[in-house]
Parts: sequence; C-alpha cells; structure tokens
Amino acid sequence: MEKMWGGRFTKPMDPKAFEFSSSIGVDQKLARYDVEGSIAHVKMLAKTNIISRDESDRILKGLKEILALITSGRFKPDTKYEDIHTNVQALLEKKVGKVAKMLHTARSRNDQIALDTRLYVRGEIKNIISSITGLQRAILDPGKRYSQVIIPGYTHLQPGQPVLLCHHLLAYVEMLERDNWRLIQASQRADEMPLGAGALAGTTLPIDREYVAKLLKFSKVSANSIDAVSERDFIIETLSSLAILAMHLSRICEDLILWSTQEFGFITIDESFCTGSSLMPQKKNPDILELIRGKTGKVYGNLISVLVMMKSLPLAYNRDLQEDKEPLFNSIETVASSLEVLARLFKGIKVNLKKVMEEAKDELMMTTDLVEYLIKKKVASSQAQLIVGKIVRYCLDKKRKLSELSLKEMKSFSNRFESDIFELFSPQASIKAKRSSGSTNPVQVKAALARWQRKLKR
Amino acid sequence: MEKMWGGRFTKPMDPKAFEFSSSIGVDQKLARYDVEGSIAHVKMLAKTNIISRDESDRILKGLKEILALITSGRFKPDTKYEDIHTNVQALLEKKVGKVAKMLHTARSRNDQIALDTRLYVRGEIKNIISSITGLQRAILDPGKRYSQVIIPGYTHLQPGQPVLLCHHLLAYVEMLERDNWRLIQASQRADEMPLGAGALAGTTLPIDREYVAKLLKFSKVSANSIDAVSERDFIIETLSSLAILAMHLSRICEDLILWSTQEFGFITIDESFCTGSSLMPQKKNPDILELIRGKTGKVYGNLISVLVMMKSLPLAYNRDLQEDKEPLFNSIETVASSLEVLARLFKGIKVNLKKVMEEAKDELMMTTDLVEYLIKKKVASSQAQLIVGKIVRYCLDKKRKLSELSLKEMKSFSNRFESDIFELFSPQASIKAKRSSGSTNPVQVKAALARWQRKLKR
Amino acid sequence: MEKMWGGRFTKPMDPKAFEFSSSIGVDQKLARYDVEGSIAHVKMLAKTNIISRDESDRILKGLKEILALITSGRFKPDTKYEDIHTNVQALLEKKVGKVAKMLHTARSRNDQIALDTRLYVRGEIKNIISSITGLQRAILDPGKRYSQVIIPGYTHLQPGQPVLLCHHLLAYVEMLERDNWRLIQASQRADEMPLGAGALAGTTLPIDREYVAKLLKFSKVSANSIDAVSERDFIIETLSSLAILAMHLSRICEDLILWSTQEFGFITIDESFCTGSSLMPQKKNPDILELIRGKTGKVYGNLISVLVMMKSLPLAYNRDLQEDKEPLFNSIETVASSLEVLARLFKGIKVNLKKVMEEAKDELMMTTDLVEYLIKKKVASSQAQLIVGKIVRYCLDKKRKLSELSLKEMKSFSNRFESDIFELFSPQASIKAKRSSGSTNPVQVKAALARWQRKLKR
Amino acid sequence: MEKMWGGRFTKPMDPKAFEFSSSIGVDQKLARYDVEGSIAHVKMLAKTNIISRDESDRILKGLKEILALITSGRFKPDTKYEDIHTNVQALLEKKVGKVAKMLHTARSRNDQIALDTRLYVRGEIKNIISSITGLQRAILDPGKRYSQVIIPGYTHLQPGQPVLLCHHLLAYVEMLERDNWRLIQASQRADEMPLGAGALAGTTLPIDREYVAKLLKFSKVSANSIDAVSERDFIIETLSSLAILAMHLSRICEDLILWSTQEFGFITIDESFCTGSSLMPQKKNPDILELIRGKTGKVYGNLISVLVMMKSLPLAYNRDLQEDKEPLFNSIETVASSLEVLARLFKGIKVNLKKVMEEAKDELMMTTDLVEYLIKKKVASSQAQLIVGKIVRYCLDKKRKLSELSLKEMKSFSNRFESDIFELFSPQASIKAKRSSGSTNPVQVKAALARWQRKLKR
Repeated sequence: MEKMWGGRFTKPMDPKAFEFSSSIGVDQKLARYDVEGSIAHVKMLAKTNIISRDESDRILKGLKEILALITSGRFKPDTKYEDIHTNVQALLEKKVGKVAKMLHTARSRNDQIALDTRLYVRGEIKNIISSITGLQRAILDPGKRYSQVIIPGYTHLQPGQPVLLCHHLLAYVEMLERDNWRLIQASQRADEMPLGAGALAGTTLPIDREYVAKLLKFSKVSANSIDAVSERDFIIETLSSLAILAMHLSRICEDLILWSTQEFGFITIDESFCTGSSLMPQKKNPDILELIRGKTGKVYGNLISVLVMMKSLPLAYNRDLQEDKEPLFNSIETVASSLEVLARLFKGIKVNLKKVMEEAKDELMMTTDLVEYLIKKKVASSQAQLIVGKIVRYCLDKKRKLSELSLKEMKSFSNRFESDIFELFSPQASIKAKRSSGSTNPVQVKAALARWQRKLKR
Repeated sequence: MEKMWGGRFTKPMDPKAFEFSSSIGVDQKLARYDVEGSIAHVKMLAKTNIISRDESDRILKGLKEILALITSGRFKPDTKYEDIHTNVQALLEKKVGKVAKMLHTARSRNDQIALDTRLYVRGEIKNIISSITGLQRAILDPGKRYSQVIIPGYTHLQPGQPVLLCHHLLAYVEMLERDNWRLIQASQRADEMPLGAGALAGTTLPIDREYVAKLLKFSKVSANSIDAVSERDFIIETLSSLAILAMHLSRICEDLILWSTQEFGFITIDESFCTGSSLMPQKKNPDILELIRGKTGKVYGNLISVLVMMKSLPLAYNRDLQEDKEPLFNSIETVASSLEVLARLFKGIKVNLKKVMEEAKDELMMTTDLVEYLIKKKVASSQAQLIVGKIVRYCLDKKRKLSELSLKEMKSFSNRFESDIFELFSPQASIKAKRSSGSTNPVQVKAALARWQRKLKR
Repeated sequence: MEKMWGGRFTKPMDPKAFEFSSSIGVDQKLARYDVEGSIAHVKMLAKTNIISRDESDRILKGLKEILALITSGRFKPDTKYEDIHTNVQALLEKKVGKVAKMLHTARSRNDQIALDTRLYVRGEIKNIISSITGLQRAILDPGKRYSQVIIPGYTHLQPGQPVLLCHHLLAYVEMLERDNWRLIQASQRADEMPLGAGALAGTTLPIDREYVAKLLKFSKVSANSIDAVSERDFIIETLSSLAILAMHLSRICEDLILWSTQEFGFITIDESFCTGSSLMPQKKNPDILELIRGKTGKVYGNLISVLVMMKSLPLAYNRDLQEDKEPLFNSIETVASSLEVLARLFKGIKVNLKKVMEEAKDELMMTTDLVEYLIKKKVASSQAQLIVGKIVRYCLDKKRKLSELSLKEMKSFSNRFESDIFELFSPQASIKAKRSSGSTNPVQVKAALARWQRKLKR
Repeated sequence: MEKMWGGRFTKPMDPKAFEFSSSIGVDQKLARYDVEGSIAHVKMLAKTNIISRDESDRILKGLKEILALITSGRFKPDTKYEDIHTNVQALLEKKVGKVAKMLHTARSRNDQIALDTRLYVRGEIKNIISSITGLQRAILDPGKRYSQVIIPGYTHLQPGQPVLLCHHLLAYVEMLERDNWRLIQASQRADEMPLGAGALAGTTLPIDREYVAKLLKFSKVSANSIDAVSERDFIIETLSSLAILAMHLSRICEDLILWSTQEFGFITIDESFCTGSSLMPQKKNPDILELIRGKTGKVYGNLISVLVMMKSLPLAYNRDLQEDKEPLFNSIETVASSLEVLARLFKGIKVNLKKVMEEAKDELMMTTDLVEYLIKKKVASSQAQLIVGKIVRYCLDKKRKLSELSLKEMKSFSNRFESDIFELFSPQASIKAKRSSGSTNPVQVKAALARWQRKLKR
C-alpha cells in the first residue's frame, strides 16, 4: 500500500478500498512505455535546468536499468503498489536513492498516464498492422495456389453467379486494407504529446514540451491542458477500428466454416487447426475459426465499455478513466492473436477441387448472363429478367437443365435467342464474359492479385 | 498440450492454435464446480452399475483429494492442459491411476461445461445476493443515524421538494431489492441439470439423470438434450441482472459524488475511501465512487459480449460458446467487489448537518404545497399551478422570499389564500403534510425503515 | 407549442428547443394507456372527494370519448403539443370545458408517464407472449408432419449424431418457453402502481393509491415515491428479455437458412416467404429469415440505449428518461412482427426427405454408439474413444465405410467387438438405442411432442 | 405489392411477409440520392451505347422531374412498393412509359443501394460538419464575452486549480475538432463508387464505371465487386464517429447541468431552453441539456445495432444488410439536431460572475503552485508535495486559510519559504504563473481563442 500523496491525510486507505482501486494487475503492461516516457521527461528536466545534469544522469541510469529488466522479461510488478507508476518509482528509488524523488517534477499522474497509453496505442497498432499484412499475405496463398478455381458466388447464401475463388479472397484483402487505414488514423489521433498538462492546468515550471515530443517522436503537443488529461478519443477510435476488424474476421471465419462443412465441402482445414471430441471419435471441428468468430463479442463489448464509461463524465480527469485500460489491452491482444492464428490456418487450406467444380457448374447461375444477352439484343432489362425467370421456372418444373433445352424451346420465350446462347452455360464462359472493372473477369483478377502481391511484398 | 481425443488425428495441433484455443487461464475458476459435478457423476455411474462400486470408490477418493486442494487454495492449474476438465482428469490419473479413465463415461465436455457453469452461477449468485443485503444494511446505517435530516429532493438536478434523507436512501434499498429478485430468477433459470445430454443426443448407457440432479440439489433435469448443450440463457440473464445492478450502483455513486462536492457539501466521505493527488496536495477525491461508476461500462460490455457471441449460432454446441466465461466471471467479480467496498464506504458517511439544513430551507421548494393548498380550496390544479408560478416570478423579480410576502400581496394573486399559508414554508411542515402512501411523510418513512430493518436482520 | 406550466417563465421556449424536446411523435403510442390511467385517476379523485362526483362525471365522459377515438384509430396526435399528456388534456378541454383542468390534480407528469409506460409494457408483453405461443405451435407443425424424419445433429456445424428433426424443433420450443418466463417476470416487475408519487415526494391531498391500483388491476403500489418516478428497471428487463428472444430467433433463422441452402438442401421455404433478384432470375432467397436475423442488431441496440441513458443519472426524475420510449416501442414492435411472420413461415416448410435421409445415414455419426458399445463391455471410456478414433482414421485412409469392415478387421482394434456391432450402423438404430431422459430416443420425443401439444392447445 | 422480379415465382408473397420486408417507410430518405445515382447511371448507359441517346433523354427528363418533386418536398412515397428503388422506378414508368424499363440495365439493387447509401453518408456528413463548426463558434461566444473569468478547474469533481473559463471552453472546441476529423475520414471511406459491381460479380455489358464516378464526384471506383456489395464499413465508421461525438456532447451537457445547479450556480441557462414542471411551479429545468445527454444512449445503440447485424455474415450480399439504414439515419438526425439546439443554447448562457469569482478564490487550489515554489527552490517534488500536504492538513484542522498563516508558521513546515509566497494565493496569480504551452496562462488562452476565431470564421 504505497502511494504518491500523503500529508493532507490523517489515516490510511481502507485495505479493501486500496485493493479495489489498485490497477497494478492491469497497467503493468504499460511498464515499458512508462519508463520510456520518464526517460524523455528527465532529459527535458535537465535540458531546462529544472534538475541538474548530475541528477538527471543518476535518474537516467536507474531508468535504463529498469527498462532493461522490462524488455528482458525480468520485471515483476509488486502488488503492494497501487499502479505501475508508483511501482517504477519505488524501484527507481531502490536503485538510485533519494534523487529518484525528482522524477515526478512538473508531472502529474494525469498527464503521465495519458502519455503512457498513447505510447502503448502507437506501439501496438504498429504490431497489429504488421499482423494484418501477414494475414493478407496468407489469404493470397490459396488464391495463388488455386488461381483458376471457380466457386459459386453467393448472395443470401444461395448460388448467384460463378466467381473465381481468388476474386472472393481478394474481397477479404480489400476489407483488411480498410482496417489498416482505420488503424493508421487511430494512431495519428494518438500522436499528440500530453505531458506538461499537469493535473489539468499546466505548470509554473519552465518545461519544454516540444522537446519531450521530439524525443518520443510525437509530431505535436496537445493544445489544451484540460482536454489533454480528460480525453480518451484515441482509445475509443482504436477500439472501434478493432471492432470493425473483428467483424471482418467473423465474416471470413463464417465463410470458411461453411465451406468446410461436409455439405459445402469446398475446402479442408488442416487437422492441426481443428480439434476432436471427447465423445464422438469421428469429429474434426473447425474450433479455431469458431473461437475467432466468438471473440467478436468481446471486442464489441470492449468498445461499448469505454464509450459507456466516458458518457457524461464532467471535465477534467475522473478516476473512472482508469477503466479504459482493461478493454483496450484485451481488444489489442484478442485481435493480435486472432490475426496470427488465422494467417497460419489460411496457409494450410486445401481446396476440394472436384466438389467445387461440380458446384460451380450449376447452370442456373448463368442466367444473369442470359438476361444480359437479351439486353444486348435491345430487350429492356426488366423484360429480359422476366423472360429468363420464366425459363428458370420451366426448367425447374420440367426438371431439366438450361443446356438441355432446344433452341426452339428457348425461342418460345424470346425470339431474340440464337444458337450462340449455348456457349454461355459454363462457369468459365461466364467469368470471361464479365467486362466491368472490379469484376471477376480472370484478366482483372490476375492483375489485382499481382498488384496485391507487389504491395504486400516484405 | 494434452487433449481428450486422438485416434482420428494424424498430427498434433499447431502450437499457436493450441495456445489460442486453450481456456485453462480462464476456466480454472470452475475447478471446484468441475470436481463437485464429477463426484455426483461417479456416484451415479456406480449406482447404475455402469462402473463397479470399487472403481467408484477409488475415483471418489481421488476427486475428494483434489477438491481439498482446490478449497484450500493449493490447486495450481497447469497450462499444458487445454482446459480445466483435462487438467482435473490428468491430476486424477496421477492420484488413482488407470481407473480415472472411467470418469468420462457417459459424459461429454459439452454437457460437463454446461453443468460446471450452472453450478458456478448458482453459487456466485448466492454470494452476490448476500453482498446486496450487506449493502442494503449499510445504506440504512446513515438513514438511521440521520433519521430526522431533511435534504432537497431533486428533479433535473434542480431542487424540487424537501424529502427526508432516509426516504432518499430507502429508494436505493428498493432498487437493490429488485436486483435481488432478478438474480434469484436468473438463478432459477440456472437450476436445470444438463448432464446426460451427452454431446447433443443423449447416451445409450443406462444413466440416472434425476439422481445426479438430486445429489447436486437441482430441482429438475434439462428436458431436451440439444437445447441443454447449446443454450446459455442463464448466463445472459445473469449478466443482464448484473448490468442493471451496476447501473443502480452508478446512480448511487453519482448522488454521493455530487453530495460530496464542495458546492453541494451535503456529506463527507471518510478519508479512508478517498485518494489524494500526486500534484495537488489539497486534494481528497472520491475515487472509490468514481471507480464503481466507471466499472459500469465493463459490466454492460460483458452483457453485450455474450449476446453478440450467441447471435446466429446454429444449434447445437459451437466452440464460440467458450467465450461466455470471461465476461461472466468478470461481471460477477466486478459487481461483488463493488458491492463490498460501497457497503464499507456507506458506513463511514458523515452528513454535514449545517449545510444540508440550510439548503432544505429553500422556500421555493414549498410551492407545490402552496398549489395543493389552492386545490384543496377548489382551485383547478392547472389554474393553481399558474397562480403560484406567478408568485414565484414575483419573488424572483423582487428578490424576496415567499415568507416575506404579506397576506395582502398573496391575496393579489388569489383571494383563496388565508393566513395559514405561512405555516407551509418550512421543510418540516412540508414533509409532515404529505399524506399519500409511499411519500416522504416522516411516519411513513419511519415505518418503512423499521420494515427494512426487520427484513434485513441477519 | 402548448405546455403544462407557465407563470414562472417570462418568455416562450425557443422553437428549435421545443421541437427538439417534443415527444409527441413517439409517445402517441401511449395514448390509450394514458387515457385509461386518467380514467382511474379521476374515479379516485371523486371517491376521495378531492373533486365532486359531477366534475368527475363530466371529465369521465370526455375521457371515454377520447378513448373511443383512440381504439377506433381515429385519434390524430397534434404536434403543436409537446407530448401525449398535453395533447389528451387539450382534447379533453375542447370536449368538456374548464372542468378538464381538474384532471391533473394530485398528479405529476413524472408519475403519470411512469404509469402509462407500465400499462404499455404489461399490455404489450401479453401480446408478445401470445405470439410466442403461436410460434411454438407453428414449430410443432413440421415436427408433427415429419415426426419420423432423422437429420444429422450438428456440433461445430459438423455432423455429430443422428437426431429426430422433431427433437431439434423441440429444442426451439424449449428456448421460446424460457422467453415466455422471462417476459412474465418482466411483466411482474411492471406490476407496481406508481401514481401518487407526485413529482417525487408524494402529495398533501388525501388520495387513495390502492384504489387506483385496484381499478387498473395492479397488485401493489410502489413503496417509495422517489424510486417510483426515477426507476425504469421494468423497461430494461423487458428489453433484455426481448434481446434474448431475438437472439433465439437469430439462431432458429440461421438453422433454417443453412438447411435451405442448395448444399444442405434439407428443407424448402415456401416461395411466398422468399424474394427474387432484380438481376439474377434464378434466385429464390430466404429474405424473411435474413431480416429477422438482421433485426437482432436493433433489439440489442435498444437494450444498450436504455442502459446507457440510465447510467449515472442522479435521482429522482431527469429528462433523459424520456429517451426510454423509442427503444422500448421499437423492440416490442420488431419482435412482435418477427414472431408473427416466422410462425407463418414455419407452417409452410417442406422437408426434402430424400436429401435428409441420405445425409442421416452417414455412418461416422454412429461411432459414439460404438464407443459406448465398448464401454458396456468394460473398456474405459477414454480408451474406447481412442480405439474408435483409430477405426475412423482407418476408414478415412482406406476410403471405406464402417459397415464395410469385416469383424476381423474390427477385432484388430479391439477384441471386445462381436458381430452385433453391425446392427449399430443405421440412424434408426442409433436413436432407438438412446436411453437417457431428454435424449432423441423416439419414445421420449413422441412424449415430449404430446406434452407440448397439450400445453399449447388453445 | 410491386416487385422487381417475377418469372421464376409461381405465387405472390405472403402479405405479412411483404409488409415485414418492406423498407419504404425507412429508405424514402434516400429518394434524392437514388435519383441522382440513376441520372448518372443513365448518362453512362447512353455514353457507352448500351441504350440510345433518345432513350436516355426520355429517361433523364423523367428522373429530373422526380428529383424536382423530391427537393421541393412534394414527393410522397407509396407503401405499395417494397422499397424506394421500386417506387422511383414505378413513378418513372408513369412519367415516361416503357422506356423506363431500361433504367435498371447493368445494375442490381445490391450495387444501387450501396451507391445510394454512400451518397447519403457523404452528403449528411457535410451537414454535420457544418453544424459542428456552428457549435464550435457558439462555444467561443461565452468564451469571448467572459474572457477574463476564472473558474475552479475540477478533477474528480473536486476543485483542483483555477483555470480560465475560456480555457475550459476551448477544451470543448478541441474535442469537437477531432470529431470533425473523424467524420471527414469516414466520408473518405464512403468515397468509393460501387455501381457496376452488379449483384456480386460485375457485368458482361460494356459499362464505364469511371465515368459514373466522375459524374457523381467520387474519387475512385470500388476495386472488388464482391466486396462492393457486401461491405458497410463506411456506415459503421460514421456511426462510431457519431457515437464519440455524442459522448462529447454528453460531457459538455453534464458540465453545464452541474454549473447551472443552484449549488454550483456558475451559469444561468436562458429560460427559452428550459422547461417548467406541471406540479412544482418554481421549477426551471435544463431539459434540453438532459435530452442531449440522454440521446447518447440511442447513438451508442445504433452503432452496436449495425456491428451486431454484420457479425458473421457470409459474403456477399445478405438481406440482413437492409437493417443498416434505420440506425444510420437515426444517428445522423439525432446528432444533427443536438448540435443545432446546443449551439443556440450556448449563445444565451450567462455567467454568474459573483458566484464564480468567489469559488475561484479557494486558496487550497493554489497549493500546487506552492509545491512548485518549493521545487524551484530545489526541494524534490514528492518531498514538496508532502510538505504542502501537511500545511493543508494544518489549515483544515485550525480552520484557517493559507493566506492567514504567518511566514513563521509556514517556515515551520519548510525553511525555503520566503515572504513572496503570499503573492501566490490569488487565482489571477495562479493562472499567470503558468508557463507550459497549452496551459491556462492568459496570454496563451488569448492566442488560442484568436486562432480558433480565425479558423472558424465563415
């Protein structure tokens, strides 16, 4: 029970209250960032002669030793301290003695924690982005291996039109690229150096905030001291970006779970990413995909947690803000591990060529091409849709395939049909006929794949 | 990396996938319940002769040793096992040898985890309810100590009418009592014994589910095996009840935070529940109240997490369901500690009598009584409201108090006013005049207090 | 711009502020309940001689005329009034003149709106419960029509064990029955008569709250006036119950969407519940199921809305509370229409017997029975699981079915196998062999169906 | 009941299902954008000779007439159509006859609705940003009028240090500026032209997507047809940005509600933004602020709605996506009206100078300056904090003010104190002494105010 304040109080904290308010169990993840921030702060205190060069040197030596402990994994947080700042401070005093007491000069825990969290967000977003890129690369892997494979493209989970598997996979890559952009922008929002805001009003000491910003590679200092200690926008924006990313992962996993059912049977997930059953010996379950999908709930929940916590808080700092960290850390770690394990899984995906080819041949998926055939022959589009709808009905009733109809039968629906329609009824013909940019046309898909390969090259 | 399945698989799990899917870090909190469930299961297996009495005795001996380890805090979960069930199983094998392998007879992890979680919910809700009662008692504490104290009753955070402090505190007690009821009902929903549902279809072994239910004090067995392994309603209902409870706590804390501002100044929070500032030496902040308020976000977020996770899951069991536990445990623990620390805080609350009395005397708060005075003299209510509104305007414009107006002046607004109106302008008169049941009338409040004291007696 | 207050104010409301704060666009749905509450209130005012019998008669006559307007759909809310209460009041004055001004005697809008909302919740929950029962009945419809049909029972969306379709459908009925219970309990929470709480402190007029409660069929009056005007637990509890219900519907719809894919092909959704495509003429999409699934988001969102709105609100009434109604009404209406349309859809479901039978024959789903065969022959369960796992691996490698193995081959895995194992490999045998209560055993399922039919009989 | 598909179907839609799936009640808000999109589409069809110039001219004439109807408010949606697209189409046919049937050429409702929604988001964000700027300007209004006013700066709602009111208000301006940036970035995400994606695969017709993009002022076309019809990131990002904005508004409103309590008494809200009570004639309640605060719940709920709806949706289009619009429209309209009415309210805020000045003089708020005084005299910061803490304790115990202590008394705590400390004990001295950038120092605040005034100039 060690704290950074005292004289005014006549009795110690209630032990249950201390335990309840302690954050060391959570904020120890900030240890590295806390020390890095302190190092910059001390350098500034020396530069501005608020402390002497000698004092600064002694403090810096201690801080660097602590940093080494942390980065090597040997730092053990001590729960007798209420938070990571107090813990680091105590360790520093143990290492360098009384001079350590100067470290907290011109700094409040309000601006210190704002700094630490910004450093954390900036650092972790960098890692997440790198993992996203890793997943994008992994998604291209089956895209390249099965570059000619055509699958049914679904809307409403009913077969729509044939598409290249690779085209479908590239949709995932596009989704993830937007996640990248959102996270970069969240990171830009974190790129503001709050130290020097003090508790809320600034300080009377001649500090140099721009110098601290420069040392810590921030591109600007926060413009308003009250705002600096009371805002957490960059955290919510990060959590929101991670929620959208988790949603994307849930959609990708849903596709893969469906594709790997016995009924769809398009792909096989490698055994090393599946689990069995304690009761049903035949089982091979896509647990990893289900877990990633299930964790979406948590990532959404974390976003809501911080939004709720911030609602109606008067300015400036309130202790409620301490509750921003658990959701932030949890979303970062959940998404990071999901990205990593999903990338590994993608590389082992096998496509069941026979099953996929058979499904892609479903001629009813070529009827849109038949509609456009009529449109090219100047039938109004809604009219063309109706004509082909009737042909579909006819085929369903007669249990016949489109390609089995005679030209005469076809002409009974529209006399614009000529014998060239029979060339339309293959998935290969269907995708090749596509002309619009961004379509599943093989030439375009190949180009898109090449473009992404270049872009994602290490 | 030890698992409960095998023969069908030709390769081990990817290590990152194993780590990702492992739940031992979370579900170790179920250890006690897992063993209790296993004890009942083994007894049933012996009773139905599925295993022999001797086999059962040996397994039971081992399970009881493990239970003793757990309840004494000496059980250390081992992360090489994927979950608590596997961990307990392995420990059992170490203790009693090969016979341990019979424990999993006629049981799937699907129904086992459903059982464990139900036992957990049932047990923990009991604890929460006891903590709610503790908080209710603690709230009555200042209610009794300051039973005559009148405070301004607010609507829109503007003074409305004078009320007894105790009446306000009894509103909290009512709120919490509804939380009790909701949790009892959530607990009733958990009161269904799922074991015997197997993976999803039941079992061909001659088990006796009713016997297991009886041993574990469940009042019924689940009626449908598919539903039994795939539903988590009791968890969501618990999380929802806890969210409403957290909302109540946030409102209580908001009141106390406001009342302990320098500006309101109604109460003093004991120093042992406050913290100071690392920078501003005069500070005494109500951090505990702020933290409880801030944690509301987390409790809401946990509810959303599980609702989202369950959305659109096909029947029956899917691995997504594993993600129900972290939110459940987190909400239970957050609310439990909030209740406990808030109860301690309540007992130390001091009312600043001088400030409160002064505020309660605000005569404008007695104008509703003046309106009702007119109504009793047969002025239509909306007319009465208008008349007194004009008197208020007159007082504000003239910067005079109601009691400073002459009867003549009052009569200029309505000739129904007589000299007895001047008796209305004290907070004591105002509360005593209330006649409706459930009002702030002192006799009624005293009776309500006594009723609650009896009810909450240990 | 007509309001229920005045004298104190010297200027009118800003027109944009009036528009912003007006709730008439939303709370007109309370019209009927508002008038019903007023009728009871007036009767009480007469009974207690606060107004005369004659005054009461005149007001009642007007109120009954307004009620007739509302129930016949001829009531048109007027947006020049800020809320439904003011609107009804103005209409009453038009009908019965000045005496109408007495209606608001001993009543505040704070307790009035609490009453109206409780009446609404009580009334609408009754309707929802009746719709749930309707859906339960509709679900039994295919259950009865296809009472012998066996489908693969899934876990992780991979075939697990064969189950009766009816057993699966009865799981839905169980889920919905819990929704019923939750809503009944939410309705009990709404069963408290708040009128008489006044603005927050009660009233000095000699009202009879128990009489109003009796007239309106409430079983009790609220016990604390401050609590009565500031709590909305019954709304949140209703929203939470509806969220769980919506979650259930999303799971049912997900099953049906999957089952009606071409790949699963278990069922056919009637055309009258599907839509086509403006572009792809072959399409027949299960839009209704997708919409119900999609609306889950809204119902969850409404729950969060009110939880967030209530967070940290100081007692007693605050205007924020007005925002409880839009989410409440939206969830009620969304769920009500979802239940109704889903019930209609269920009655038209056709099962594709050929496809289902074929899938149910998958012998790998009978391996759990094989494991239990060994257990009955005293092989330890985990050992049995391993043996059969190896047989599965053997079959997969050799591309052979279980039933194609010779007894000799089987014995090479375990010498406990005898020739009777070959009787296990049919779905009929599998379900018949189940012995546990609540299992998919046909006798039990038939009994459960009969039980539900009795229970759900009109 | 008119639809855009038919031939394949043998029976009409169930009327309840039609009503349930109809979106015309909601998506009529897209009318203008739907027609603008169609105009661009027709021009492209003509340019690429898919339809003739004459056909195009006739269609365009009709579309422009419909657009005129819409922009003049004379367009009345007809509920017999299922959605706005069908409604516009029918109206067009009425106006220009059969040629209208060509409009839907090379277009699916999947890409059409994606386009409409993007146009809506782009347009409405522009309006919201303009309203944010309006609110920023309005916030500066009292900032300028009361540029010298000092208020207590709070942390934990306890007085911390004196700050300029204007500094506090500028914190709001900073918060809102980040909202601007987020919305601009959400708008950039919407800036992708999806038309031409068809149902999901593109089209075989020789369309020119880049031309449509140019006509509609999009800076790029969507790169992948599957992604184009199935993603809604830009909607969620908009909803998330609006949720953060609503959170900011809730904090601003909370401050104003507190400041306008009788107990704080810092400001007076103009009567025209307050309401009275139907029962308590003295009441003047800050309802508008409470409503804005309360609406936060809704805006959060809308975000969750769409996140939940999207969770686990397989690619590409599913009808669930229709549920994106109600939350989107609701958040846009809620935030737009909140911004507008809050801006009007800000302009009428009056500061109660006497009350504010009195509060700002609280000498305990100057103790941080006293700590820094010691630090400048080379006392280590934590030591200085402790010394001043003891002085605070001494003052509280003796009920004396800091300025009433003698130098001798002060020196008994630290001999570094000199007589110049007595100059520290005024709020003016405190703010002037601040030296750090971004602090409440008057010179800096003045500069910041000037900077914002320039920036926000019309």
